[in-house]
Amino acid sequence: MGSSFGRALRVTVFGQSHSPAIGGVVDGLPAGEPVDMGRLARFMARRASAGKKWATPRHEADAPEFLGGLNPAGRTCGAPLAFVIRNENTRPQDYDNLRRCPRPGHADYVATVKYAGEQDPSGGGHFSGRLTAPLCVAGGVCLQILERRGVRVGAHLQRVAGIDDERFDPTGPTPEELAAPGEKAFPVIDDGAGERMRAAIEEARMACDSVGGVIECVATGVPVGVGDPMFDGLENMLARALFGVPAVKGVEFGLGFAASDLRGSQDNDPFCVRDGRVATATNNAGGINGGISNGMPIVVCVAIKPTSSISRPQTTVNLDELAEEPLRVRGRHDPCIAPRAVPVVEAVVACVLLDAMLCDGAAAACGGAPDRQTTTREAVTHE
Amino acid sequence: MGSSFGRALRVTVFGQSHSPAIGGVVDGLPAGEPVDMGRLARFMARRASAGKKWATPRHEADAPEFLGGLNPAGRTCGAPLAFVIRNENTRPQDYDNLRRCPRPGHADYVATVKYAGEQDPSGGGHFSGRLTAPLCVAGGVCLQILERRGVRVGAHLQRVAGIDDERFDPTGPTPEELAAPGEKAFPVIDDGAGERMRAAIEEARMACDSVGGVIECVATGVPVGVGDPMFDGLENMLARALFGVPAVKGVEFGLGFAASDLRGSQDNDPFCVRDGRVATATNNAGGINGGISNGMPIVVCVAIKPTSSISRPQTTVNLDELAEEPLRVRGRHDPCIAPRAVPVVEAVVACVLLDAMLCDGAAAACGGAPDRQTTTREAVTHE
Amino acid sequence: MGSSFGRALRVTVFGQSHSPAIGGVVDGLPAGEPVDMGRLARFMARRASAGKKWATPRHEADAPEFLGGLNPAGRTCGAPLAFVIRNENTRPQDYDNLRRCPRPGHADYVATVKYAGEQDPSGGGHFSGRLTAPLCVAGGVCLQILERRGVRVGAHLQRVAGIDDERFDPTGPTPEELAAPGEKAFPVIDDGAGERMRAAIEEARMACDSVGGVIECVATGVPVGVGDPMFDGLENMLARALFGVPAVKGVEFGLGFAASDLRGSQDNDPFCVRDGRVATATNNAGGINGGISNGMPIVVCVAIKPTSSISRPQTTVNLDELAEEPLRVRGRHDPCIAPRAVPVVEAVVACVLLDAMLCDGAAAACGGAPDRQTTTREAVTHE
Amino acid sequence: MGSSFGRALRVTVFGQSHSPAIGGVVDGLPAGEPVDMGRLARFMARRASAGKKWATPRHEADAPEFLGGLNPAGRTCGAPLAFVIRNENTRPQDYDNLRRCPRPGHADYVATVKYAGEQDPSGGGHFSGRLTAPLCVAGGVCLQILERRGVRVGAHLQRVAGIDDERFDPTGPTPEELAAPGEKAFPVIDDGAGERMRAAIEEARMACDSVGGVIECVATGVPVGVGDPMFDGLENMLARALFGVPAVKGVEFGLGFAASDLRGSQDNDPFCVRDGRVATATNNAGGINGGISNGMPIVVCVAIKPTSSISRPQTTVNLDELAEEPLRVRGRHDPCIAPRAVPVVEAVVACVLLDAMLCDGAAAACGGAPDRQTTTREAVTHE
Repeated sequence: MGSSFGRALRVTVFGQSHSPAIGGVVDGLPAGEPVDMGRLARFMARRASAGKKWATPRHEADAPEFLGGLNPAGRTCGAPLAFVIRNENTRPQDYDNLRRCPRPGHADYVATVKYAGEQDPSGGGHFSGRLTAPLCVAGGVCLQILERRGVRVGAHLQRVAGIDDERFDPTGPTPEELAAPGEKAFPVIDDGAGERMRAAIEEARMACDSVGGVIECVATGVPVGVGDPMFDGLENMLARALFGVPAVKGVEFGLGFAASDLRGSQDNDPFCVRDGRVATATNNAGGINGGISNGMPIVVCVAIKPTSSISRPQTTVNLDELAEEPLRVRGRHDPCIAPRAVPVVEAVVACVLLDAMLCDGAAAACGGAPDRQTTTREAVTHE
Repeated sequence: MGSSFGRALRVTVFGQSHSPAIGGVVDGLPAGEPVDMGRLARFMARRASAGKKWATPRHEADAPEFLGGLNPAGRTCGAPLAFVIRNENTRPQDYDNLRRCPRPGHADYVATVKYAGEQDPSGGGHFSGRLTAPLCVAGGVCLQILERRGVRVGAHLQRVAGIDDERFDPTGPTPEELAAPGEKAFPVIDDGAGERMRAAIEEARMACDSVGGVIECVATGVPVGVGDPMFDGLENMLARALFGVPAVKGVEFGLGFAASDLRGSQDNDPFCVRDGRVATATNNAGGINGGISNGMPIVVCVAIKPTSSISRPQTTVNLDELAEEPLRVRGRHDPCIAPRAVPVVEAVVACVLLDAMLCDGAAAACGGAPDRQTTTREAVTHE
Repeated sequence: MGSSFGRALRVTVFGQSHSPAIGGVVDGLPAGEPVDMGRLARFMARRASAGKKWATPRHEADAPEFLGGLNPAGRTCGAPLAFVIRNENTRPQDYDNLRRCPRPGHADYVATVKYAGEQDPSGGGHFSGRLTAPLCVAGGVCLQILERRGVRVGAHLQRVAGIDDERFDPTGPTPEELAAPGEKAFPVIDDGAGERMRAAIEEARMACDSVGGVIECVATGVPVGVGDPMFDGLENMLARALFGVPAVKGVEFGLGFAASDLRGSQDNDPFCVRDGRVATATNNAGGINGGISNGMPIVVCVAIKPTSSISRPQTTVNLDELAEEPLRVRGRHDPCIAPRAVPVVEAVVACVLLDAMLCDGAAAACGGAPDRQTTTREAVTHE
Repeated sequence: MGSSFGRALRVTVFGQSHSPAIGGVVDGLPAGEPVDMGRLARFMARRASAGKKWATPRHEADAPEFLGGLNPAGRTCGAPLAFVIRNENTRPQDYDNLRRCPRPGHADYVATVKYAGEQDPSGGGHFSGRLTAPLCVAGGVCLQILERRGVRVGAHLQRVAGIDDERFDPTGPTPEELAAPGEKAFPVIDDGAGERMRAAIEEARMACDSVGGVIECVATGVPVGVGDPMFDGLENMLARALFGVPAVKGVEFGLGFAASDLRGSQDNDPFCVRDGRVATATNNAGGINGGISNGMPIVVCVAIKPTSSISRPQTTVNLDELAEEPLRVRGRHDPCIAPRAVPVVEAVVACVLLDAMLCDGAAAACGGAPDRQTTTREAVTHE
């Protein structure tokens, strides 16, 4: 199990790094939503490796073929959206010995034990970063749907190799500000910081090593009241899905770990009235109280560890002989996967937010109940 | 929704801060597991406020009454374990105005919008930390079951108000080391650090303010191969559940965010042979590769924000009048909830780990339980 | 597992026949819904045994105590509705030997194997019909909520011991017609048939035997479009939940099994215009096409086997000695459980329909999509 | 939603009747299971229409292409099994007017309302019987896995157009008896009955009409104790999945509806000792007590309504004009879908049983797979 997430909107991904294809199924999309294929392709290109010196030399076109879920007019039809992406540029021979000599930092060892050696080791099998391509297709479609509902999602490299980018304005970045990093070759706000990050990545690559980073993602326009208390809150659902992106080792919301060093009087976001609506003066909570959106931008940061695949010599254990031995990892890899993970984080956040908004609609649509989406908020905000 | 988590083992909690009772249902426990009630009571006492200067003056006995799930011998019987805890010491009048004037940092505002003002505002309703009491009952039972399978879970205050405790040995703390903080009045490894933390908490309390902290939790003895790839991994499931604990704003595994500043050659854990088994020389991954346990200790850190309820004057918005106004929060609160959250984190981690172990091999793999598939049927059929 | 059902509305029941209490948790109810306690008590009384000669002599008050989920005004508050019902009239000693000598037709044997003999055998443990009391509390609340949305649910004994009652009008029974059987001491449409059924039950009781029956349940007012295709349709969800009622061995919709003997020209329901709306001239489909409600009454029939507990001598196997031996079942039992199961079927149907309606609201509430609940149907029906 | 079922084993199907392809994803299969492609093709051929006079003239090769989930040796690898089947023989123009003039007995009308007219109407879109092809791929693989664990599944046409076939021996059909109907051109036990059924189907076809039927499916070798109480029992899970097969209107277990006419003394299955094991003398319960397998054959019957698509004139409503009008359904259809549904029912039953067995004891209880918990780890650690 493990290949799916979501409740009212369920995303499933499948395939392995070197299997005939990878793909996905998205069940629960609202019907009648147009899919702009050109825009989707541009979104996919942000994740692709082609033309990026700091990315793997394995290049894939990553053009999804849609098999179901669209009507002749190209709009969602209520059936699950299903698509495949062919794996073209595979070199299975690179991975022959991983079952026996697992790579440090990878899932080779746990897969050998869990699947009794039957896993597909090529390119990491279904633990590969390849699986983030179908996530981007699913998320790319969700981003288009969310935008029609006034929700914008943007991410950037907040930190790479200890070098910090600027932050998005947590109280209300503009759509242009959110979109800007994604439109650049290197997804940062401050291009100077981006230059230094790229230099650090290149330095690591020359040293046959890798570096990690932190991605900040912000979503604006999420209505108040999305998410459920306790275990189905936005934080729970976002974290659950984001830890499905390979190499993610930490997730925090708003100030996150930094909040734990503050006093309550510093961390609490005072309520205020802004543009005739309830807002908060600061946004240390990242737009979420009690798991539920409070109308402020959703702010989440994701820690990406340095790429595990490095060509420097490492030590592993030969499982057949239970003896330590040196390992030199071959194959084609990114010296830093964080830049290519930026659109992946946007995609996952989009899937989770659309799911939560669809779940949230439940009560409102059952007509007898007060229509929270309109009358309640009006009552509250005197709009 | 939102009151449940888990797949093979499903934990549901219910009740509000000032409702007649709170409680829980745990479905899927292996049958035949004894519940040591004395030990459970001692575990619950770690979360209780009584006798703790740094805790709320609201004291509750928190003695669960078990309504179902046990057989006459006091062992789990296959039916869901169900229990209630009466709310005794309630003062509903303290919270009359929260629907109209939401407290900063709390869920009052989002609840007013989401539930159209119908929520139970007393003491935070079902957003209250009270709901962590049933979590501790569920987790306390799981801890006993896990221990019979060789799994130990321990947590401590890794940091409070910027003051650091020592860390558990990530490559293999002893059961005694894991248990030690929980046996102290203040759950730290280094009592000197604990003294300084307590002073900082007291200082905040005197200033009508609050402080936050970080809790480290480590589990040893989890077999290799527990957890599922992608979205049902241990990291996904632990994060999803841990963000259900009020005030958690960040979750990280192993080095977590710190890993993102390292190079791959520093972060990767080299495999080695230790005591005739495969292990890793370091444990920067926190015992998890690709979402799956690798046999090393599971290491998770949880960021707790400073208590939102502070008696210092704050600013809120009067929702009836859509006007800012000053607020002074009354009620009884902890100046730092992190110390009392330590057993809660252990409890949640225990529930998630037992669930994952059951998913991974159901009852059979959890060796302590009678092996129904063989011995039972033999007993029944005289084969 | 197994104690829960539902997606947007999740019902969990707990407790055993002779445990301290039974109860339930209903998560996902819309907030602000009043619960009429008097009406709920009258609904519960329909399931109770008191005053019914054809029912077990074990009488329970079955008055639920609500522990959470209601605000001070007695309306749902967004938190899970939680309640307990004390087991008062228990005689655990009646069931001492069931673990060793399982009763034919009961779950004693499978429980002994599945739970390695650790199950609570008293009164059937959590396989007991007692667990239908919390189902009735959950369903009784859902029935009130549904009625405010124009949905009515009614059931009756369609057949007992081979004696047929009349059927509800499948194309549109009035609310009064649906309610009438439930207001009688014996829930039938035709009291003459009811008399004969009661005589048959009494005859079986005198013979130390039992009889079965069929319950028909009809729901009117369900909007067009409720239910999801394939595996989450109304038929799927209703059947899944209804088979959770002890003794149910068959579920059919509309003509059900009888449809399989017809030709398509007989079975197809021709579309027509009635009262300015799209309808069907007949309702052989039971109001469901492709798993989705078509606006006609939902019609479901449920087969109830004869009570397994009979005091006539039967043959069992002594599991300790693996030898056949005679068995005389003691304890207090219903010679026919079908009459008391009538409100249980209504309750389960109500829970499932409300869940499906809440799920269905998802798409509509996500504002950018066409508002199916109004504009679409208007477009279609020219209202 | 609605395109998935299962808990430990999750089956998802996608595609529409005339979309580029249909397909499926099966997540949770045990690793290391060989897939016999030739055998799978023979199983798929039982559902195919080619060479069957009583089937639609639309012929599809239905050869699945596997995109993921297999290792180079052709065994399951732990990743989700994913496959597609191209739709070759489509005639979308046949269905142009269905959105406006819905076919009686079909989902056209409910889809128009639910999806606001955005559904893909061609060939019934994703309500089409085409979707049973991926179900057969999923089930065909599960059947192979089950057989290695001693479980056999067989089905036959128990009744068509009022003509009865013999029944399988409910207390223990041999593997040969279970397999026999599926090896015939027309899947019955008694070829004489089959002849009469075929004549009735042909007669209906000549009359531009259709007939329905009942399918009996039996599974032997399911261990005692599979299934969970209440809402996750075998009956619940089988019914939920079986109602996902188009045209199913009733599901019953063992004697089913007939049991409701019996007395308890007739219906109860007395326990006995057979071949040194606990068994029951009769099997009126269909091998299931309290939702849990009792070791006897699982017996389920499924009512299939007559094909809704008939070329006789019918009445529909023109939704644009809200006026009744005559309809003549074109397109290519089966005069009786029950024969082709026989392998579909086997497939669905196989998926559900394997899921339940995995839930019950995960991989370990499914003895044919390598026992990871012991042998694998030993192999790895040289213990």
